[in-house]
Amino acid sequence: MNFASVYHRSDENYCYPLDENRLLIAIKTGYDIDRIVLYYGDPFSKGIAGGNENWTGMPIEMDKCIHLKYHKLWQVIVTPEFKRCKYYFELHSGEEVMCMMEDDFYLPSHMEHTGATGQFFMFPWMNESDIVRVPEWVKDTVWYQIFPERFCNGNPNRNKSNVKPWKSEPVRWDDWYGGDLEGVTMKLSYLKDLGITGLYLNPIFLAGSNHKYETTDYEVVDPGFGDDEVVKNLVATAHDMGIRVMLDGVFNHCGYMNPKWKDVVDNGPKSRYYDWFYVNSWPFDKRRDTRDGKFYSFAFAAYMPKLNTNNKEVVEYLTSVCNSWIDKYDIDGIRFDVGNEVSHTFLKHLNKELKAKKSDIYLMGELWHDSESWLKGDEYDAVMNYPLVNSVTAFWIKHNFTNTEFEYALNRCYNLYRRQQMEVAFNLFDSHDTDRIMHRVNGNIDALYQQMILLFTVAGSPCIYYGTEIGMEGGFDPDCRRCMPWEDIDSGKYNDRIDFMKRLIKLRKTIPAFKEIDIEYIYDTDNNKILHYVKKDNCGHKYHIILNCSSEAIQYNINGEIIISNKYENGLILQNGAVIYEENEYSN
Amino acid sequence: MNFASVYHRSDENYCYPLDENRLLIAIKTGYDIDRIVLYYGDPFSKGIAGGNENWTGMPIEMDKCIHLKYHKLWQVIVTPEFKRCKYYFELHSGEEVMCMMEDDFYLPSHMEHTGATGQFFMFPWMNESDIVRVPEWVKDTVWYQIFPERFCNGNPNRNKSNVKPWKSEPVRWDDWYGGDLEGVTMKLSYLKDLGITGLYLNPIFLAGSNHKYETTDYEVVDPGFGDDEVVKNLVATAHDMGIRVMLDGVFNHCGYMNPKWKDVVDNGPKSRYYDWFYVNSWPFDKRRDTRDGKFYSFAFAAYMPKLNTNNKEVVEYLTSVCNSWIDKYDIDGIRFDVGNEVSHTFLKHLNKELKAKKSDIYLMGELWHDSESWLKGDEYDAVMNYPLVNSVTAFWIKHNFTNTEFEYALNRCYNLYRRQQMEVAFNLFDSHDTDRIMHRVNGNIDALYQQMILLFTVAGSPCIYYGTEIGMEGGFDPDCRRCMPWEDIDSGKYNDRIDFMKRLIKLRKTIPAFKEIDIEYIYDTDNNKILHYVKKDNCGHKYHIILNCSSEAIQYNINGEIIISNKYENGLILQNGAVIYEENEYSN
Repeated sequence: MNFASVYHRSDENYCYPLDENRLLIAIKTGYDIDRIVLYYGDPFSKGIAGGNENWTGMPIEMDKCIHLKYHKLWQVIVTPEFKRCKYYFELHSGEEVMCMMEDDFYLPSHMEHTGATGQFFMFPWMNESDIVRVPEWVKDTVWYQIFPERFCNGNPNRNKSNVKPWKSEPVRWDDWYGGDLEGVTMKLSYLKDLGITGLYLNPIFLAGSNHKYETTDYEVVDPGFGDDEVVKNLVATAHDMGIRVMLDGVFNHCGYMNPKWKDVVDNGPKSRYYDWFYVNSWPFDKRRDTRDGKFYSFAFAAYMPKLNTNNKEVVEYLTSVCNSWIDKYDIDGIRFDVGNEVSHTFLKHLNKELKAKKSDIYLMGELWHDSESWLKGDEYDAVMNYPLVNSVTAFWIKHNFTNTEFEYALNRCYNLYRRQQMEVAFNLFDSHDTDRIMHRVNGNIDALYQQMILLFTVAGSPCIYYGTEIGMEGGFDPDCRRCMPWEDIDSGKYNDRIDFMKRLIKLRKTIPAFKEIDIEYIYDTDNNKILHYVKKDNCGHKYHIILNCSSEAIQYNINGEIIISNKYENGLILQNGAVIYEENEYSN
Repeated sequence: MNFASVYHRSDENYCYPLDENRLLIAIKTGYDIDRIVLYYGDPFSKGIAGGNENWTGMPIEMDKCIHLKYHKLWQVIVTPEFKRCKYYFELHSGEEVMCMMEDDFYLPSHMEHTGATGQFFMFPWMNESDIVRVPEWVKDTVWYQIFPERFCNGNPNRNKSNVKPWKSEPVRWDDWYGGDLEGVTMKLSYLKDLGITGLYLNPIFLAGSNHKYETTDYEVVDPGFGDDEVVKNLVATAHDMGIRVMLDGVFNHCGYMNPKWKDVVDNGPKSRYYDWFYVNSWPFDKRRDTRDGKFYSFAFAAYMPKLNTNNKEVVEYLTSVCNSWIDKYDIDGIRFDVGNEVSHTFLKHLNKELKAKKSDIYLMGELWHDSESWLKGDEYDAVMNYPLVNSVTAFWIKHNFTNTEFEYALNRCYNLYRRQQMEVAFNLFDSHDTDRIMHRVNGNIDALYQQMILLFTVAGSPCIYYGTEIGMEGGFDPDCRRCMPWEDIDSGKYNDRIDFMKRLIKLRKTIPAFKEIDIEYIYDTDNNKILHYVKKDNCGHKYHIILNCSSEAIQYNINGEIIISNKYENGLILQNGAVIYEENEYSN
């Protein structure tokens, strides 16, 4: 038995309550293990001192086995009678059986041997207030991300003097086109029609650039975009249409024009805001690069000085800013830019305060790497699911993944954190920080559709970057920030693409199975670019999703028939090398 | 390469700051790996977007390799220039070299291949307020645990009517002997003389039993033990002698005589305290057993109803109790009884409040199992180090461990949590909850001495259970709670044992190496009951500790000479099969 491959700790996503009654227990092993029985029970069933010596647990098969590249991940859900759970694992590898306790592996005979005790695993009490809870509405949300300066010019009076004519061609980094929040409000009916139920807006507060990630004032809406009334109206109108709104919180750093920073630049240690930043040596040159370490900034960009979120005053100020956004605009979520560099201290404080004010607010961090440290339950509800994008890119674009490797990668993504957190993961395939899907797939609309089908049939709340519904083109920044081509849209040029997205979004909303974490992969072909997976709901419905991601048309055998693309009209089966069907329906 | 055996996550004790500048990175592998190089550097060294494609890290050997039973645990400490650290591992197994990133293992050639990127590991920013900090004084503390009813009767006026004559023989569960806090104060000079610098008192607040773990009133000192003035005086006198004081906080449950609980028992849902407890069904029988689930208690003991630490009112009340203990008595620490069942919510709140009042207060939990969930830095400073006791018992008493297995077990103990937490672990080999060492070793004083030498030469703050310094006998509760035999002590009966402990404590205090986490094991003999380990300090001193734990006298070769027991007089070498010497001193 490969003992060294076995991993379990009564912590993180290996042992945690799903709710007040159900405890999920997981264990990772090598591929040599073919069966695991969990023995669990109340720690005090045999006496007040723990009674290790005579304690025996109740056996339960760990019947869920998820395949990772080098491991099997086993899960089971138990319902401890008295909220306490003591347990150990019985591992089977062929004829070999060993029991895993906290300190070592033991022979099964040892477990019955009075007086010979190892250290049992323990989840001592399922405290209700410690359960990781997330805003339920996010599971049902279909997001749409808007970069305001490029979405829609609703009020030309807000145009800067150097605004360029609206166009759908490539744009430059410092171009201005006049997009604003009145424009967003005007297009809400378009979004509602598409099926959108959540809006994520890039920053809208006072800043010099068109992206506004270098905030001058967190409490003033950028006049190029609108004002308090415009935002209030936008949110209220969206709410009336069943659309929630999430703002971008840029708290890791502010902008070089922020008065607090300017005060520090001018007055150094004498400034009342000196400790609001990380100044190591004053005075300093205002340059584009902070590699001299005189002060800390985002990356080495001097125009984005880092805010010191270890300073209580800063923590309280930024918390009050977020509170005021809820009070003034009634927003439903905040996305935290560079959400991995601000202090945990800040995030814990913020979470407590904001959830007290609006219990179902969605706090979502921009993190590109393993985010377990931020997802203990008292900081973010979820993070941007970049590992998912990476897997998609590796399978569709870089072509270095087979379907099996894609399964491993997706299984890894969906088992990084607790189930409730994965259910509200922010799933995005492109954004203002990446190239666009259409660019990545080199204009292959089928590949874009396939990826969209994946996005809308897996757990987490999907997000469409503005324009992706019409297959908008664009490489990395600034090219991914082109103007939304309303003329073409209104002329009907993209109707088929928009129709596709509408149908997909509708499917997402009507088929609960798609939102479930659990996913079963089927390998019925030698073609390793066929993706075939099954999603189930709690009512016995079972859906097959089959995506032909190879470069050629293929014949695929489903229940004895070749059916790819042949039932387009029933609304459950889509074109472009993709089939979705409900198993029972089909076999009837 | 056994990929499945490799474990690292940028979380927990695998990647964390030791202080504002130093980041410890650890990785666990199978025994097939013989060298690891960490590549690390600033994530933005090649551009603002992270610049994965051209990024290269600086190599550093992971030169510390700790042996566990199935794994090697590799560690290295780095100093990121800008508080940010991006990294990956290069694993060597013979000629085979593979690079480990967050999502997979890659060939070294891949790491230099522009455009082919995996997911790097990341510690995004070393926030000062997130660093796990512990009370520094605990590292230097030598604790002494007192069960007040059995330590010393200092004020006979407090005696209950049914008090029995003080005696050193076995006692019964419900006996009373009249020990009190005036008695403790009277014996402080004895403790100071012994070298004690910390006192841990079992519960002292109003309760019906002699152990007082079923609190009737958290704000009233039990009159059988003393009153506020007596406690104040005890703490103040102790402080004058350089001795800190830690009280026992029993907050998981209270006692059946607690007025709040009585109110619930009598009035059910109408009681203002109904939600302070876990009542599932009222009315209920007051019985000794809560297996019917009508209300929750500690274990199934109806006389210890569980407090609902998920209720904000309870959280605030218990926090105010702890605050008042600091205010009234100026205590230095709290040990949390059944510290694993109270809510994390409560502990986080408590930690924040108490540290704000007294920044170096020591919050220590009674946990018998893996405690990582409570040691994220914002709950307990440390826990009772029961895994250490288990290892000692397995080696000395159960005889199922060889010295190599003992090394594995000890290495596991000392690498469960962060280094700063291990340095203030509460190391105890016996207590009111266990049998006594002398009982366990069946009266073999040499074995007791050997264990004490271990306890005082490893990291964590050692605790002596009252009477263990004289080798007091006693099985499990109530036998481990016998009266302290002052007559025998005063008559000089135990002078040699007390002298041994004094010398050992003095060594502990004068040789900083003993407090260090790092430990090197030496195997120069076939006898697997010889324990030989080396401790170093930062000034080049190197100490050898050699314990002959076999049942026979043995010859042991140190630098060409057999020296066991031959240098007793120099104070660095002790009797009873134990040798401690400083390497340089000896070879000079």
